Amino acid sequence: MNLKMMRFIVGTLVQIEAALLLIPSLTAVVYQEWDCLGAFGLTAGICLCAGWLLRGKRPENVTIFSSEGYIVVALCWITMSICGAVPFVVSGAYPNPFDALFEIVSGFTTTGATVATDVEILPRSILMWRSFSHWVGGMGVLVFMLAILPMGASSMYLMKAESPGPSVGKLVPRVRSTAKILYIIYLFLTLLQMTLMILFGCPVFDAVNLTFATAGTGGFAVLNSGCETYNTAVQIILTVFMIVFGVNFNVYFLIYCKKWKDALRCEEARAYLGIIAAAVFLISLNVYYIFGNVGTTVLHVAFQVASIITTTGFSSVDFDLWPEFSREILLLLMFIGACAGSTGGGIKVSRIVILGKSVLKELAFLVHPRNVRKIRFEGKLVEHETQRSINVFLVAYLAIFVTSVLLISLDNFDGVTNFSAVASAINNIGPGLNLVGPVRNFSIFSNFSKLVLTFDMLAGRLEIFPMLVLMLKIRGRKRWN
Amino acid sequence: MNLKMMRFIVGTLVQIEAALLLIPSLTAVVYQEWDCLGAFGLTAGICLCAGWLLRGKRPENVTIFSSEGYIVVALCWITMSICGAVPFVVSGAYPNPFDALFEIVSGFTTTGATVATDVEILPRSILMWRSFSHWVGGMGVLVFMLAILPMGASSMYLMKAESPGPSVGKLVPRVRSTAKILYIIYLFLTLLQMTLMILFGCPVFDAVNLTFATAGTGGFAVLNSGCETYNTAVQIILTVFMIVFGVNFNVYFLIYCKKWKDALRCEEARAYLGIIAAAVFLISLNVYYIFGNVGTTVLHVAFQVASIITTTGFSSVDFDLWPEFSREILLLLMFIGACAGSTGGGIKVSRIVILGKSVLKELAFLVHPRNVRKIRFEGKLVEHETQRSINVFLVAYLAIFVTSVLLISLDNFDGVTNFSAVASAINNIGPGLNLVGPVRNFSIFSNFSKLVLTFDMLAGRLEIFPMLVLMLKIRGRKRWN
Repeated sequence: MNLKMMRFIVGTLVQIEAALLLIPSLTAVVYQEWDCLGAFGLTAGICLCAGWLLRGKRPENVTIFSSEGYIVVALCWITMSICGAVPFVVSGAYPNPFDALFEIVSGFTTTGATVATDVEILPRSILMWRSFSHWVGGMGVLVFMLAILPMGASSMYLMKAESPGPSVGKLVPRVRSTAKILYIIYLFLTLLQMTLMILFGCPVFDAVNLTFATAGTGGFAVLNSGCETYNTAVQIILTVFMIVFGVNFNVYFLIYCKKWKDALRCEEARAYLGIIAAAVFLISLNVYYIFGNVGTTVLHVAFQVASIITTTGFSSVDFDLWPEFSREILLLLMFIGACAGSTGGGIKVSRIVILGKSVLKELAFLVHPRNVRKIRFEGKLVEHETQRSINVFLVAYLAIFVTSVLLISLDNFDGVTNFSAVASAINNIGPGLNLVGPVRNFSIFSNFSKLVLTFDMLAGRLEIFPMLVLMLKIRGRKRWN
Repeated sequence: MNLKMMRFIVGTLVQIEAALLLIPSLTAVVYQEWDCLGAFGLTAGICLCAGWLLRGKRPENVTIFSSEGYIVVALCWITMSICGAVPFVVSGAYPNPFDALFEIVSGFTTTGATVATDVEILPRSILMWRSFSHWVGGMGVLVFMLAILPMGASSMYLMKAESPGPSVGKLVPRVRSTAKILYIIYLFLTLLQMTLMILFGCPVFDAVNLTFATAGTGGFAVLNSGCETYNTAVQIILTVFMIVFGVNFNVYFLIYCKKWKDALRCEEARAYLGIIAAAVFLISLNVYYIFGNVGTTVLHVAFQVASIITTTGFSSVDFDLWPEFSREILLLLMFIGACAGSTGGGIKVSRIVILGKSVLKELAFLVHPRNVRKIRFEGKLVEHETQRSINVFLVAYLAIFVTSVLLISLDNFDGVTNFSAVASAINNIGPGLNLVGPVRNFSIFSNFSKLVLTFDMLAGRLEIFPMLVLMLKIRGRKRWN
């Protein structure tokens, strides 16, 4: 294990976090929230010192390998979350440290589930830090680090461990320039959405916060009513951009490189848009009687579908009151999730497509044993290695899911609440159903359950393996050292 | 496709069913239920004629292959179910044909879910046919046919397609003698349980019915109160025999061959007993406050755990009133199911163990990339082929599960009801939670939902593939012919 290099990476990351605190600090200055400014300043100071202590000199050997990559990414996210929770506790916005940790992890992992019963009484700079954490966590803070600092041979493993989806595909070879281009695209889309929202009459503070939350597919709102009170134009803009940020960034990368044909041919993006269209159609048929008008129905349904499948988690109506069929389609979309290589969560469309193809292949083989077919995705053969890792991912995912539901069921709430709370956390969505429905929050749970859900959010964002490898390492150390 | 041979097999099976109707007919004579006797006689007549028409002459070419094996098994089960439903409709016990089909499929697949709101008003011979269908379906009616008739090279594929579990292992080579030995063991255990129950004071009619239902891990009871009113000794006998019939029959086969050491070493059986012990322990802690007494608590918990994990589905108390943690452990046991090669349903312990091992292997590989480990089960290397088919099984299982929940949610009952109804049907258990809890029944659902659940029961009993291959074949014929 290259411990020096791992310390160096974590230290650098903590120092970057200090720099990121500038955004909420500026907000505190604008809104004259001096207490909060103090809290952010203190945290930044702690981050700079801790980062300096951890980093030490730049090590000569900068090489780390796959398993170290997973561990360092897990450690980075845990450290970043603990530091990020400090301003919440110090400012008094979230006096309970478990609440503060839940909230910031919910931010960085772009979940958007909140334990705040009333967000409108929170200071504006605290709201800004919440929303901004979505933006930072969406594209990945290590990807950001890779974009601005040379990390040599470590880069590939870090990027692989932090990026969502079964494989970063073509993007791997030149990691640093890739990371830069990704962040440029991300910044461009963010600014575009912000401008449009302000032009169509959304208040500037709300526009900035909601855009950060949309870009990271997070879901923290600044009003207790979520997105219910904004005008139709703003809701349409939100719908469109939620869908846009759920598309595989490969597509934008290809557009950036002017490879239009390849961009249009992206199989995952087409499957993703197809699923959205099907879900909007089915739910609209089912809830038409509530709105009594095609336009309003499609508007609200599209908003909710986009919000759930991209795992953003905004709500424009209380979909928990919809009929069971619609509620269950939404629950299903929670699991499917957005495209790999987007800022969204869930199992990812590409994994679902490959799993579906493997079943069809097997069935075709049973019917015609002489026809041996291979699975293709995005026009390329899916390697045995990739298929196996997807299967193992699915099983590990189910195991964590079941264990978590059992653990939080000790609080003795009903099954739909427990099931949808864990589904919401592990898929980084935000709202669930019943007691954690879109107009409720997660404050009902015990501290223990909050910790379990915090773990699920991190496991979901980092796609299971980094957290599991870290746990195995800790257990292994206890046993053998 | 060897159509002649397929017709011959289905025809033979229908004729065997006519013979099986002797048992309920005798019951009708004993209890002087002449209407029912007429219904059974009519059905037997239909079966004999239809069987004679289908069979034709014994074909010269008796060879069928893997995919035909799946299709013929699916066709056999569907034909057998339709014929078996006739006495229910004709006798007037279940006037709605959808109810009758649901009930007999629930019988043959050893599910034990009922649409009867009051079983105590049903004629005794009808109750006997319900219970006996569990016994027939438990070990498999095609296995029975193989035991009594020589089927040549077809045998292996038929047995493979009908027997539960990832592989019939060592049993394959001499199919006919194997099938015979299996049925001898099955009969011996059945008679043993029946005798014990009668000795310990259970009424004879109840003892015979409950034993058939236990042996097949079915779950149809003859009292509305399930097994609540029987004495403690009878409940203990039921608990023990439910667990016994959930063990891989390989173990009894080895004991029969006097290979005691190998029998004790069976990894699946040990995992199965371990899971039972852990579940009993955890639930007992959780529900101790209800009974206030260690003995009673463990007795009822062990009964419920054995009933659910073996997918029998008897109940001695209304476990739907237990706290959420216990309810969710029971729900989890529904999915795990019994051992492969037993009469129980569910995903099967061996599949769960192999899936768990594959995740641990993958994680170990991430931590120590130079340590390549292989998965072993029952002391043997698990072949790549087996692993892949288990993964594909899991995905197909999830797909059918999700689709079914969505379809029956159109009836607009709550999520826990829908989820647990499908879980109960596809895992062949019987009771679910909430509106289909242990003291309720499935009569609330629409005919459409009953059909969906009927399909799930068949897919669950035949382990997914035969039903899917048949559907693919039907679709393929429409498209290409």
